[in-house]
Amino acid sequence: MSLRAAKPGELSLLCKIRGRAARSSSGDLSLGIGDDCALLRLSPGEELAVTTDLSIAGRHFQLDWHPPESVGHRALARGLSDLAAMGARPVAAFLSLGLPGELTRSSSRKPSWISRFYDGLLALAETHATPLAGGDLAQSPVPVADIVLVGAVPRGKALLRSGARPGHLLYVTGNLGGSAAGLAQLADLDAESKQPGRRPLNISANLATQLKSHLYPQPRIPQGLWLRQYGRATAAIDLSDGLSTDLAHLCTESSVTAEVDSTRLPIHPGASLEQALHGGEDYELLFTARSSVRIPQSIAGIPITRIGRILGPRKGRPLVAIGTAQNKHPLEPHGWEHFS
Amino acid sequence: MSLRAAKPGELSLLCKIRGRAARSSSGDLSLGIGDDCALLRLSPGEELAVTTDLSIAGRHFQLDWHPPESVGHRALARGLSDLAAMGARPVAAFLSLGLPGELTRSSSRKPSWISRFYDGLLALAETHATPLAGGDLAQSPVPVADIVLVGAVPRGKALLRSGARPGHLLYVTGNLGGSAAGLAQLADLDAESKQPGRRPLNISANLATQLKSHLYPQPRIPQGLWLRQYGRATAAIDLSDGLSTDLAHLCTESSVTAEVDSTRLPIHPGASLEQALHGGEDYELLFTARSSVRIPQSIAGIPITRIGRILGPRKGRPLVAIGTAQNKHPLEPHGWEHFS
Repeated sequence: MSLRAAKPGELSLLCKIRGRAARSSSGDLSLGIGDDCALLRLSPGEELAVTTDLSIAGRHFQLDWHPPESVGHRALARGLSDLAAMGARPVAAFLSLGLPGELTRSSSRKPSWISRFYDGLLALAETHATPLAGGDLAQSPVPVADIVLVGAVPRGKALLRSGARPGHLLYVTGNLGGSAAGLAQLADLDAESKQPGRRPLNISANLATQLKSHLYPQPRIPQGLWLRQYGRATAAIDLSDGLSTDLAHLCTESSVTAEVDSTRLPIHPGASLEQALHGGEDYELLFTARSSVRIPQSIAGIPITRIGRILGPRKGRPLVAIGTAQNKHPLEPHGWEHFS
Repeated sequence: MSLRAAKPGELSLLCKIRGRAARSSSGDLSLGIGDDCALLRLSPGEELAVTTDLSIAGRHFQLDWHPPESVGHRALARGLSDLAAMGARPVAAFLSLGLPGELTRSSSRKPSWISRFYDGLLALAETHATPLAGGDLAQSPVPVADIVLVGAVPRGKALLRSGARPGHLLYVTGNLGGSAAGLAQLADLDAESKQPGRRPLNISANLATQLKSHLYPQPRIPQGLWLRQYGRATAAIDLSDGLSTDLAHLCTESSVTAEVDSTRLPIHPGASLEQALHGGEDYELLFTARSSVRIPQSIAGIPITRIGRILGPRKGRPLVAIGTAQNKHPLEPHGWEHFS
C-alpha cells in the first residue's frame, strides 16, 4: 500500500485520512493503511471480484458544477456498482488520487476540496460497510481519482454478462435517465450563473436533493446480492454507459440479441426517452432471468421492471431492437461521452 | 472490470489489449477482461495483498525523456515492488490509464505511444507471470497511469514494516542510487539536446542499457518470496522514496530507531552518496533480521549487504542515524520529489 507522501503537508493530510478511513471496518481487512500493501482475508469458498474506475475532471465531473462530496460519492459508486453487477459483497476500497495543490488546502472559514471529497466518499463507504484500505496520493495538474473495489462472491456463483440465453426475459432496477436529466439541469444552471450580474453556481441542499439521481446515485449492492443469492438472474451488467451501450455489451458477451419494449421503460420523472436510453450513470442493474423464474416487483425497496426479452442471433437481426410489438427498429449504442 | 469505452477507435484498441493481456496467465484468474469485474481465486490459507500506485506525467515520468516502454515497465514495477516487500506472490495486475487522444494514435511508420507503453508493461508482467486482468481507459489531458497489484501470501506470514526490534540487523538487496544517477544523466542529455542545432533526445539501445537501473528497475519478487518463505526477515519495505525516507517509515511503524554504517552502503557505480541515500526509485528491498539468523551473501542472484542495525527509541536519539562507529549524525528523510 502506498498512501505515502514526501511533503509534510501531505503527511498530515494522510494521517487524517488514515484516521477517518479506519472508521468503516470490515471483518475481511487484516491490515489497512500504513504498510506496502493492505492485507485482506476472504472466507473459504469465496472468490475475489476486482474492478477499477477512473474519474477525470472535465470528463467525468466538472469542478465548478459538482460539489466535492458528489465527486467522492460518484467515484466510489462507480466501483460499488460494478460489484453489484457481479452479485459480490464489498470487501474493501482503494483510492488513488491526483490533485493540484490548491485543492488540498483548507482555510479557517472553509474545509479543503479534498476533505469534502472524502466526506462524500466515506459516507457512501459507511453505508455499504466498505473500509478504505489504501491507495496513493500525488500532485496532478488535472484532478483524477481512480477507485479500486475488491469484493467477494461464492466460487462460480458470480453474475456474469455472458449468461443470457434466447427466451430469457430482460429486467431493470429503479428508473432510467435521471442522472442525464440532472446533468442537463446542472449545465443549464451553470450557463445561467455565467450571465452578467449572476452569482456563481451554488448547489443548495434543496437543489442537491432534486438532482440526487445525478449527484448521489445509489449502487444496487443489496439487489445484486439478492439476485445472486437466490440464483434468479442468468446475466447482469450495471448501467454506467447507458442502456443502449450496456445492453449491447451484455448481448455481445452472451452471443444473443435483445428486444426492448419501449412502452415498458421506467423513465425517471422529468427525463426524456433519449436520456433513459443513452444517458448513462444511472447505476441501475440490467439483468436477465429464465421466463419460468418469478422476479418480484421490488427487491430491497427498489422497483423491478421487465423491459424486454432475449432472442438468438440471426442474420439481419440487430444486436438490440426497440419498439412495440408491431413496430421495432434497431437501437444503436449511443452512450453519452460526457464532456467530450 | 471496466476496460470499457464508447468510441469505436478505443474499442478496437481495447480488443488488442484484451488479446495481449490474455497471454500472461496465472492459475488464479478465473475471469479476465470483459465483464464488470475480474474474478480471482486464491489457495486456501492465503490472504490477499493489494497495492495501488499512481504515475503522472511531469511528476513520475517525462514524456520527452522516458521511452514509452520504460513508462509502462516502471508503472508495473512500482506495484510489483510493493508485493515483493510483503513477500507476496503476484496474482494479477489492473491498469487505469488516462491519456490524451494523440498518444493512442499510430501511423504506418510507427506504433502509438500506448502500444509501446503496453510493450514495456506486458514484458515485465510476463517475467513475473502476472496477468493484466482489467482496468479502465479514459481520455485525459495529462497522461496518468494507476497500477493495481493483487498478490497472495500465506495467512499471517506477510513481511510487515512493523516487525523490526532493537538488536535486529539491517540489510538491503542490490545497490543504491542507480536510478537517481540515471535520472540525472537523462536530465543532462535532455538539456544538451535542447541546445541550438542539436537533435531531440533519442534513447539508443546502448544508452537504455546504461540507464537500465532507472528505466527498467527489477522488482525483487524472488528475494521477497525467499525471505518470507524461509522466515528470515522480521520487517521489510521497498525503497521507492529513497533509503532515508523509507527507513524512517520502517522505524516509525516498528517504534524503533536505526543506525546506518556509511562505510557499508552498496553504492551503484557512478552514483553519489546523496543519490544512494535519498534518490528513490531503486526498488531494492530494505529488511531486518535477528542477529542470530544467517542471511546469505546473495538471494536469487542479487547481492545482499548488511548496512546497519536497529536500536530502541531513546530521548535525544534520532529516528535514523548514519556514519561510522566513531562519528554518527542524524539522517533526515529527504526522499526526492521528482520533477516537483
